[in-house]
Amino acid sequence: MKYSFLNDYSEGCHPAIIEAIKNSNHGQCDGYGEEVYCKKAVDILKNLIGKPSADVHFLTSGTQTNMVMISAALRPHESVIATDMAHIATHEAGAVESTGHKINEVPTKDGKLRPEDIENVVAEHFFEHMVHPKLVFISNTTEAGTVYTKKELHAIRETCDKHNLLLYIDGARLGMAMTSQVNDITLPELASLADAFYVGGTKNGFMMGEALIIVNDSLKPFFRYHLKQKGALLAKGRFLGIQFLCMLENNLYFDLAEYANLLAIKLSAGIEAAGFNFCYAPESNQIFPVFPNTLIKKLEGDYGFFVWNKINDTHSCVRLVVSWASTESKINSFIDDLKGTSNNSFLSEYFQ
Amino acid sequence: MKYSFLNDYSEGCHPAIIEAIKNSNHGQCDGYGEEVYCKKAVDILKNLIGKPSADVHFLTSGTQTNMVMISAALRPHESVIATDMAHIATHEAGAVESTGHKINEVPTKDGKLRPEDIENVVAEHFFEHMVHPKLVFISNTTEAGTVYTKKELHAIRETCDKHNLLLYIDGARLGMAMTSQVNDITLPELASLADAFYVGGTKNGFMMGEALIIVNDSLKPFFRYHLKQKGALLAKGRFLGIQFLCMLENNLYFDLAEYANLLAIKLSAGIEAAGFNFCYAPESNQIFPVFPNTLIKKLEGDYGFFVWNKINDTHSCVRLVVSWASTESKINSFIDDLKGTSNNSFLSEYFQ
Amino acid sequence: MKYSFLNDYSEGCHPAIIEAIKNSNHGQCDGYGEEVYCKKAVDILKNLIGKPSADVHFLTSGTQTNMVMISAALRPHESVIATDMAHIATHEAGAVESTGHKINEVPTKDGKLRPEDIENVVAEHFFEHMVHPKLVFISNTTEAGTVYTKKELHAIRETCDKHNLLLYIDGARLGMAMTSQVNDITLPELASLADAFYVGGTKNGFMMGEALIIVNDSLKPFFRYHLKQKGALLAKGRFLGIQFLCMLENNLYFDLAEYANLLAIKLSAGIEAAGFNFCYAPESNQIFPVFPNTLIKKLEGDYGFFVWNKINDTHSCVRLVVSWASTESKINSFIDDLKGTSNNSFLSEYFQ
Amino acid sequence: MKYSFLNDYSEGCHPAIIEAIKNSNHGQCDGYGEEVYCKKAVDILKNLIGKPSADVHFLTSGTQTNMVMISAALRPHESVIATDMAHIATHEAGAVESTGHKINEVPTKDGKLRPEDIENVVAEHFFEHMVHPKLVFISNTTEAGTVYTKKELHAIRETCDKHNLLLYIDGARLGMAMTSQVNDITLPELASLADAFYVGGTKNGFMMGEALIIVNDSLKPFFRYHLKQKGALLAKGRFLGIQFLCMLENNLYFDLAEYANLLAIKLSAGIEAAGFNFCYAPESNQIFPVFPNTLIKKLEGDYGFFVWNKINDTHSCVRLVVSWASTESKINSFIDDLKGTSNNSFLSEYFQ
Repeated sequence: MKYSFLNDYSEGCHPAIIEAIKNSNHGQCDGYGEEVYCKKAVDILKNLIGKPSADVHFLTSGTQTNMVMISAALRPHESVIATDMAHIATHEAGAVESTGHKINEVPTKDGKLRPEDIENVVAEHFFEHMVHPKLVFISNTTEAGTVYTKKELHAIRETCDKHNLLLYIDGARLGMAMTSQVNDITLPELASLADAFYVGGTKNGFMMGEALIIVNDSLKPFFRYHLKQKGALLAKGRFLGIQFLCMLENNLYFDLAEYANLLAIKLSAGIEAAGFNFCYAPESNQIFPVFPNTLIKKLEGDYGFFVWNKINDTHSCVRLVVSWASTESKINSFIDDLKGTSNNSFLSEYFQ
Repeated sequence: MKYSFLNDYSEGCHPAIIEAIKNSNHGQCDGYGEEVYCKKAVDILKNLIGKPSADVHFLTSGTQTNMVMISAALRPHESVIATDMAHIATHEAGAVESTGHKINEVPTKDGKLRPEDIENVVAEHFFEHMVHPKLVFISNTTEAGTVYTKKELHAIRETCDKHNLLLYIDGARLGMAMTSQVNDITLPELASLADAFYVGGTKNGFMMGEALIIVNDSLKPFFRYHLKQKGALLAKGRFLGIQFLCMLENNLYFDLAEYANLLAIKLSAGIEAAGFNFCYAPESNQIFPVFPNTLIKKLEGDYGFFVWNKINDTHSCVRLVVSWASTESKINSFIDDLKGTSNNSFLSEYFQ
Repeated sequence: MKYSFLNDYSEGCHPAIIEAIKNSNHGQCDGYGEEVYCKKAVDILKNLIGKPSADVHFLTSGTQTNMVMISAALRPHESVIATDMAHIATHEAGAVESTGHKINEVPTKDGKLRPEDIENVVAEHFFEHMVHPKLVFISNTTEAGTVYTKKELHAIRETCDKHNLLLYIDGARLGMAMTSQVNDITLPELASLADAFYVGGTKNGFMMGEALIIVNDSLKPFFRYHLKQKGALLAKGRFLGIQFLCMLENNLYFDLAEYANLLAIKLSAGIEAAGFNFCYAPESNQIFPVFPNTLIKKLEGDYGFFVWNKINDTHSCVRLVVSWASTESKINSFIDDLKGTSNNSFLSEYFQ
Repeated sequence: MKYSFLNDYSEGCHPAIIEAIKNSNHGQCDGYGEEVYCKKAVDILKNLIGKPSADVHFLTSGTQTNMVMISAALRPHESVIATDMAHIATHEAGAVESTGHKINEVPTKDGKLRPEDIENVVAEHFFEHMVHPKLVFISNTTEAGTVYTKKELHAIRETCDKHNLLLYIDGARLGMAMTSQVNDITLPELASLADAFYVGGTKNGFMMGEALIIVNDSLKPFFRYHLKQKGALLAKGRFLGIQFLCMLENNLYFDLAEYANLLAIKLSAGIEAAGFNFCYAPESNQIFPVFPNTLIKKLEGDYGFFVWNKINDTHSCVRLVVSWASTESKINSFIDDLKGTSNNSFLSEYFQ
């Protein structure tokens, strides 16, 4: 059986979640997220982000969250600005377009969108024969595993303000972004920069669950109608609420994300020490080393991972994803397989 | 604290589901429903319906299931024929229309759609200035709690065949339909009449989960693209698969549904014995008695339920929903509150 | 060759239009409606309705106009309230739904929507599981040929204000409404009641052309983007502008409409004198007499018209449409064919 | 008053069209394109393309034609492959996306899409997390004024066949393509390569009008429903039919296009002789010379044209469009203004 670095949703959920579900399972509640577990989870989230007036909604998948939020925010003629690596542009099967909106894609070298990209798109779209860019979409961590700095996020916000654009942050891996060693922004500060963003659960140990946080007042009215219309209002919302409650009330959410990041650092260090480079700077739980195709072939015998893209005729970039459930021993094995040596010290104190 | 007859999703999930999740939680799986739990659940479903070639997909909500299936089945000019009580027509916030399709609504007295309704809609839509009816939507049990007979279902299928229409059955409460005392069709026979239908989990003890079964070959290709595009492809599909596996492998799904139906019979009998009538024949776990408004006011102190509609100035119809988690004692209390007597015999052998 | 009372767009255009096109054809203009002919026509329209701040756009068909206006006005969860005879509900092939919006249809006996209809729909749609009614759609004249009175329109406006609803008037036959003998509202007053409406050209002697007038400021921004996106921004907008200019600058638009109405009165009087009744009060250029099926069969030999609906086993209602291009002699022939007498006086002074 | 080379729809229509409208204006016809003028025009078109079984529909604008055809051809998960200069990708305000479909844009240097572009997009879209490319969109002439060769078109068709893709050709300027000096394909051959294409009228002397030709049988059924739903079924279709009839029955359509091309050659030659280069090879009535910004500034005093894009800090590419209504004297003046000399011979025999 291969060990998978394919993604961060191959494992089940963190055991604490099952325990929390079990303990909260008995008895009647209001449906559709209007019961005590959701309410408590909402309160914790508001507190964490320092926005008592934010609206919080729980959904079941990232694609769903992006689709509902973006379609609710835009009028028919409005478009989204995103990188050409953005999840909405590449891996959501046209969900945004299915709700009627074009994505203005801009090339990126590292997964990040930059103020000048936004400026360019705005400048190129100046009259009614074109779509009207209205919402800026970024992911943090990005699809390249990189993490936006505070300075970069402020610059994007300023550009949005200049052109009356909304800023929406896909936080499928927001836990990893916040606990990355290169991160220098706090959650409240990030929340004050975004018009809306989500705190992703699926990729950080949940069964499923994404918490959409709407900060901008103009995006709040009637939002539950959009959830319902898009099939995103879960009847037994309690099962989303209890997962967030369990994960957030004692910081487990961030501990797991940090753990994944730290293991990824170890893996990156091992790869680098073995003499390999990276396509993108390894800053979170997704890393993108460049390997010879012959090595890739060999590694594929024991490990699952995506071949991300071709570098040249002999080398390719692969994506390795480390998760809350990855083990140090597997990381070590992978590094050993790379270099033919054994190294089992780092992070070992983190366990037990 | 009021006891709720509001719906069948107020309770948590059946304990067996939590156990099954716990037991299957460890270890890596492929994502998006392509792992062993989903596969086993699919096999059981195919076996139950006697259609080895059917396609089965697991989704998280009924509105989502209806939206994805209907939008995938129709070309832009095509419409849906449904009753004016149909869930898609009334309580899905315009999900079908949001994907571009009109619903041709026909009045119903008992929640059922009849061949002549279909014939009328087809006859009225004869040229390109009108939508083109293409899909017939029925719910079993209906939104009025009634259950289609075998004869009725065959007649609908014949009408669909006559006019080249697709037949889709919303099975949010298919368990209750199949175990209703008035039901006279088997699941394989129902499956052979429908082009697609779903087996609902949410309202029968799941955390969440609906199994969409596509019987008609022409509706199968590329269906997972539609799931993904509409945000309905769960990354950790295993958590849907394991629920169906747990519920179906030992008939628990149908046992729970039958239990709800039997308790509802008891409740109906008590209501009738107390001298009240019903808006629709009580045939499953949703019943619709007519009470004086004064009595409703009084009952609302102790019980939660929907006031369905106004009958006249002094009387209204209410909806009472009994579920797998309802208790005989609460049913008895309700009946007692109606008539001021106590009756605790019926169904008592079901419990022990 | 049969003479057609099928509709009011069977004839070509009024000769004055061809003359105006010929005279304005030479030379270069800005495209997309931003040239002198459109601008002059816009000015005349603004003057006629007494709203200098209104926005005016020229489109090519009524379905297009309704689709663009309604889809631009609504957010995804919002719906339209209309009668079940409304053109958008019956004869626009699901155009409104194709842009994602449900139409809440209410029964009507005479083509008119009434305040209590609006109240009922609003009352029934109270939470996020349902669409949110936002726009009231009426046609004047109605699809039954009837004409709203000033009192009725004020009452609808008040109901809209009470519930924060937009009022949009389909004016495919607004000329006929304004010149109907039962009309008691002026165009400026009507314009002050509507949030948007259109002045229809196609059915009143144009080649094609509808003038959409947006009164409510909130509906104005970015409207040309919606026109372009829906394929409704004509490159050579001058050919729409010149038609409106020609028709409006010397009142020809209203003269033609009045002429059609007057001929329809003559036709109605003849039908009534011959002993027949009407399904709806004959108030404009569309009239709906009830004839024996045997007579209909006979009339179909010489005349084209729609059999509107079945009254009983022996009688049906037919729709007869009189237009700016209908002739008194054909009206007389029809009446003669009904009663076997000849009558050629009325209206004769109108011609020469 | 500036002389405009902005586009080919600044002028009115060819006088023959007004004459034809005048001569056909009297009398009653069936509506919606089902009368004699449309039928005759359809017959001529079928004959010209050598496809008696083709379906032909008349619409009013190019954006509308693209939107209706593409949305009717695709299922929700399917996408369009086009260049990043494609009109649908840049200048139709998101019309394709508004119907739910993503455009997979590929870079182009000369406006042309190449087989390897298609291959790449197909190769990159291989599973259900991505859209499924299904329709290839090309324009002939391209948005860069270039013209596809027979060899290029055959190669595209073969690639489409290999991957089960539809080929749709935007023929807004198909007349100019067919009469370009670099063209080497006949209209019947082009029609045998496309699944659908349109013959554009607006940019070649019509008031308005585009003839959509559907060659592939699978795209034909119910197409008029799509026309109606998208507001594209003109009530008085005769006014589109008569324009095509007038333009096609004596080759006027192609004569006008060739005239525009020839004048453009003259203009190109003059520009080249004056020492300037082109961004794209001048092959039809749109040419794209590169001028110093100082010269552009000067020319803008007397001529209207678009500054297409920036070449470097001192030079820009401009678009000059010559039409059926352009005059040789204006071309000469422009050239004179470029080089300070006078040249009035070429093409003079073409006139009177």
